[in-house]
Amino acid sequence: MANPTAALIIIGNEVLSGRTRDANLQFLATELGALGIPLREVRVIPDIEDTIVATVNELRARFTHVFTTGGIGPTHDDITSECIAKAFGVPWEVHAGAHAKMAAYYAAQGTEFNAARLRMATMPRGVVLIENEATVAPGFSMENVHVMAGVPRIMQAMFRALAPKLERGAPVVSATVHADGVFEGQIAEPLAAVQRRHPALDVGSYPYFRPGPVRGGVALVAKGTDAADVAAAADEIEALLVAAGGQAIRGEPRLDDNTTAKV
Amino acid sequence: MANPTAALIIIGNEVLSGRTRDANLQFLATELGALGIPLREVRVIPDIEDTIVATVNELRARFTHVFTTGGIGPTHDDITSECIAKAFGVPWEVHAGAHAKMAAYYAAQGTEFNAARLRMATMPRGVVLIENEATVAPGFSMENVHVMAGVPRIMQAMFRALAPKLERGAPVVSATVHADGVFEGQIAEPLAAVQRRHPALDVGSYPYFRPGPVRGGVALVAKGTDAADVAAAADEIEALLVAAGGQAIRGEPRLDDNTTAKV
Repeated sequence: MANPTAALIIIGNEVLSGRTRDANLQFLATELGALGIPLREVRVIPDIEDTIVATVNELRARFTHVFTTGGIGPTHDDITSECIAKAFGVPWEVHAGAHAKMAAYYAAQGTEFNAARLRMATMPRGVVLIENEATVAPGFSMENVHVMAGVPRIMQAMFRALAPKLERGAPVVSATVHADGVFEGQIAEPLAAVQRRHPALDVGSYPYFRPGPVRGGVALVAKGTDAADVAAAADEIEALLVAAGGQAIRGEPRLDDNTTAKV
Repeated sequence: MANPTAALIIIGNEVLSGRTRDANLQFLATELGALGIPLREVRVIPDIEDTIVATVNELRARFTHVFTTGGIGPTHDDITSECIAKAFGVPWEVHAGAHAKMAAYYAAQGTEFNAARLRMATMPRGVVLIENEATVAPGFSMENVHVMAGVPRIMQAMFRALAPKLERGAPVVSATVHADGVFEGQIAEPLAAVQRRHPALDVGSYPYFRPGPVRGGVALVAKGTDAADVAAAADEIEALLVAAGGQAIRGEPRLDDNTTAKV
């Protein structure tokens, strides 16, 4: 049976303006891969109602799961929750369970449970809360759409609470082999042959740069849900790197952030 | 006149699998904002032809400029260039100028100009090359679609070569004011009033966490193309943070990567 699939919607002007560097994509991509729910598409969109509603409705029809990050705080630019209600055509109303928990929390803190904070207890009708250890204000799941905070620490706590409830697929496993001094243009043909012999796998090629006498090399990756198939492809990759004159090493090369390449 | 707009398409399985953390979004968001070409949407999509063609065609109709990163190397998973030709319905053919330059380069290096490397000189008919200092293999512009490498160092060199040719808008300027010990739930109402008084601006609220006796605060940002309007909004933001009991400080707080927040 085919694996379930996922899409991610990153909601927030701060990512589009460059103010904030997103840290949630890579975390979710890695975690979802391990659960056998590969991430297939990501969108970064602004805090604009029509855009959020249209994007949610398009993606929830195309993917098993849709995750959103951002826009669930108490300020005027936090409109994700209302937009999810509009996307599903359901009322946006105070959630009794979330309200009770937040009221108790703010009372214990001696903090006013004002109109702005009440927005965080207001949700589409029919949600399941995503309670978590990081914040009293929960995320929620509305059918296959999982609405989480944008702050990485809170998002990660929400995902850890949500993950056990998700339908899983066969975990995606990968094998990497790299070789210094071998460049993509040399191994493109035999690598394409590996991909053809293993059509169920995703075979990728990633050049890297490293200062020094040998100015870089290439990392070749085989990825898929059949571990034996991945291992067989990795053996073939190792052989083609050796045939190209390289010393093939299992695993990722050490990289800096500004990788570049001779091709 | 309204500013031109931009969308970014990040093409590559390695970002969707979590193997690679994208570094191009934030660079382009910042650079494009300074050119008055605000980034309005980003998509991260896999190396799948139908997906690339459909995404390019949707976004090039909606935005002034579309930038793509990734998928222009010599290996079988580098299919961006062919997909751009399909999206525009034009032949994909050897570009004489790119071919001449690459042939001379590989000859001087004593490197074989083989079939795989020839793919990098093969482009949609009608492109304008994006020559750059980082690599002999150029990117290209096809009408309003600008096709660049995924490796950050090469992408940045291509963008620097391309930027002077882009139609610019009024630069986006922003002002940030932050205060430790002030939380979003306290200032949501007066901040919404600032947004209402300055409808042309984008007013945002970003909670932050910092270890220590005061566990964080909030950074408030006003952004727009009218510098006087931005300055006036920043004054109002400073006043509302002081009214909330905070010490308002112009500029960004120092943040770690795992910001979290009390709301």
